[in-house]
Amino acid sequence: MNRVAESAQLDRLFFALADEYRRGMLDRLSRGPASVSDLAGPLGIALPSAVKHLAVLELGGFVVSEKVGRVRTYTIEPKALDAMEAWVARRRKLLNSQFDRLELYLAQQTRKPAR
Amino acid sequence: MNRVAESAQLDRLFFALADEYRRGMLDRLSRGPASVSDLAGPLGIALPSAVKHLAVLELGGFVVSEKVGRVRTYTIEPKALDAMEAWVARRRKLLNSQFDRLELYLAQQTRKPAR
Repeated sequence: MNRVAESAQLDRLFFALADEYRRGMLDRLSRGPASVSDLAGPLGIALPSAVKHLAVLELGGFVVSEKVGRVRTYTIEPKALDAMEAWVARRRKLLNSQFDRLELYLAQQTRKPAR
Repeated sequence: MNRVAESAQLDRLFFALADEYRRGMLDRLSRGPASVSDLAGPLGIALPSAVKHLAVLELGGFVVSEKVGRVRTYTIEPKALDAMEAWVARRRKLLNSQFDRLELYLAQQTRKPAR
């Protein structure tokens, strides 16, 4: 994936999580595959609304779906979580280097003889 | 923070990340505090646009700002990264338990004597 495509994928990934119902669906799917009605029921939302939210999650790379007979089953896709973990870990690393540099700077300032 | 407020905050947190410019600003801020023009310049965006993106990041809890004289300086807020790490870690745990249960189930099936 090139940089532009990767960035667009991160947009879709984070956008998918910016909604309580979609996060609720992911929590349910973390416990195993489910159908649209399994997912809509506990959240108290209508099926067409659930289908739209699932499409956003699918675009974000969080779920895959498969239709067997008349029932479409949704399964969580762990790769999206990997991508998020990688993103968060990189920011944490950048942030820690900033604090390390600050600490080094403060240590150097403390060691300087008073003039 | 109650559950509703916490969920609304997660909405704002993930929405803030669903944009390449805002993620670019966070990368820059991970290396140290910066002014609006420091942040707008490298991204090639206009100052009013940068101000809007920074307001979204501030709502998401990723940055704090302080005005000294005529210059407003933005600093990264590590707590938002903590909240994200907690969210991701919880989903990873749920997902791993799902795989553990699946593994246990398969192991039990394998052990069953053929009838």
